[in-house]
Amino acid sequence: MHQPFKTALVQMSMSADKTANLAKAATMIEQAADGGARLVCLPEMFMTPYFCQREDSALFDLAEEFPNSETIRALRAVAKKTKSVVIAPIFERRAPGVYHNSAGIIDADGEIAGFYRKMHIPDDPAFYEKYYFTPGDLGFKAFDTKVGRIATLICWDQWYPEGARLAALHGAVILFYPTAIGWHPDEKSRYGAAQHDAWRTVQRGHAIANGVYVAATNRTGLETDDKTGSKLEFWGQSFIADPQGVLLAEASVEKEEIITAEVDVKHLETIRRNWPFLRDRRIDAYGEITKRFIE
Amino acid sequence: MHQPFKTALVQMSMSADKTANLAKAATMIEQAADGGARLVCLPEMFMTPYFCQREDSALFDLAEEFPNSETIRALRAVAKKTKSVVIAPIFERRAPGVYHNSAGIIDADGEIAGFYRKMHIPDDPAFYEKYYFTPGDLGFKAFDTKVGRIATLICWDQWYPEGARLAALHGAVILFYPTAIGWHPDEKSRYGAAQHDAWRTVQRGHAIANGVYVAATNRTGLETDDKTGSKLEFWGQSFIADPQGVLLAEASVEKEEIITAEVDVKHLETIRRNWPFLRDRRIDAYGEITKRFIE
Repeated sequence: MHQPFKTALVQMSMSADKTANLAKAATMIEQAADGGARLVCLPEMFMTPYFCQREDSALFDLAEEFPNSETIRALRAVAKKTKSVVIAPIFERRAPGVYHNSAGIIDADGEIAGFYRKMHIPDDPAFYEKYYFTPGDLGFKAFDTKVGRIATLICWDQWYPEGARLAALHGAVILFYPTAIGWHPDEKSRYGAAQHDAWRTVQRGHAIANGVYVAATNRTGLETDDKTGSKLEFWGQSFIADPQGVLLAEASVEKEEIITAEVDVKHLETIRRNWPFLRDRRIDAYGEITKRFIE
Repeated sequence: MHQPFKTALVQMSMSADKTANLAKAATMIEQAADGGARLVCLPEMFMTPYFCQREDSALFDLAEEFPNSETIRALRAVAKKTKSVVIAPIFERRAPGVYHNSAGIIDADGEIAGFYRKMHIPDDPAFYEKYYFTPGDLGFKAFDTKVGRIATLICWDQWYPEGARLAALHGAVILFYPTAIGWHPDEKSRYGAAQHDAWRTVQRGHAIANGVYVAATNRTGLETDDKTGSKLEFWGQSFIADPQGVLLAEASVEKEEIITAEVDVKHLETIRRNWPFLRDRRIDAYGEITKRFIE
């Protein structure tokens, strides 16, 4: 059984300067590791502003290959230097016309421990992701690292109980959700509180239903699309919940900051022994989950 | 499209006197209907104390057949008189040695609209349900009633995203969870708040993930097993959440009371249009949900 370890989430804002974003991320990983963190998760597509506010074919230039990119090379070096696992979300160029929203899991020795491609792709005004991202084809998985067996999903995945369940059934003890979620400024006063509360609640629900830790890493800051003027105010509030859904750490709305919590497999086992939900699943009766709707 | 309607939950305590429990339930249904409710849900096995605190074969005598029982006949008359849909949870005797924890859905004209047998059966100290209840074999469904298409699940089902998802895919606009959940008195001070919060959170999560109303009807009161002295303090706090997980109504811990909220299919559609989670489900990638664990 793995030892308890401290995990950290890096909540940051992004500029149009990729070099600066990478340097900031690397510095914050080092700060987290200096504070004792053994695993650090960055926000979704931390290398760029959230470019999906408009559909523009020129923006595919922002993508990079995995693992042969400057970003991944740099973060592998940081992981090795700090002896920390790093979850590195990237805009992935797989082939001409085939792009994904992905995340590499870099082990604490700098080796690649896993790779995930976002399975659920949203599309809403100012979140035009179906234009940019081919839905993932690697499925829901978990990966062994030096600190334990973990899973990452990405942003919109966080609304889907199926993804959380499958990652937990693969043995993950913690589910990471690198995220880029925010308010439309003109909706915030009316709907903002309920939107944020629903976002946090559904993910705490995954923690409870599966008996796993859940950690969501969001970006912060107001981003304005320079062509359309469209604005998104990313709501920060990255958080870590325990296997009973208890909030262990939660970031502010507006600050760049590192939050941390301890992940303890013994605590997870205690929770699952007392609330043995996995024992009683009716696997004989769930087959229709693979239907779109049931008429 | 169905009109908005007021739904009511009856939070009550139970005595060993079945006649008194039935009379109380009937009176509270009439009160709810007088207040404008068109659908009333009773708590799990409202006809008896929560007898599963001990394993005792004599207690199978408490069961009754569906729909040929005094309870169902009486509630059909109440439903017809009040023109209200009634969800009537019973301890069901199906055959010698085959008992279920079930719920009848009685339509507003007194006819039977549906029947559900609890699919997920718990077993914990003082909740010895696996001794009493054969797991349900009717699956997760939804039923048409005079007020709309609804589903009921029962208690332990509330921890399972799969059951909520399947009922929603069958077209239910609201999921009911008749419940008997409470604190072990010696655990309450240390664990009670987190236990209740997890219970409410995971069910609000079902509302959010599926875009459905969710309503949980719990019993209240301290029950002491007369043979073993085992005690359970049922925590009340019945609630109704909207399709974004917003609490519309919530009962107290200790009082017998009726809570109500409006169920509006137009509001449900607005929420689903803005958060189109059902659109993006990866039904091609969920097949392993039917596995117990994935090694």
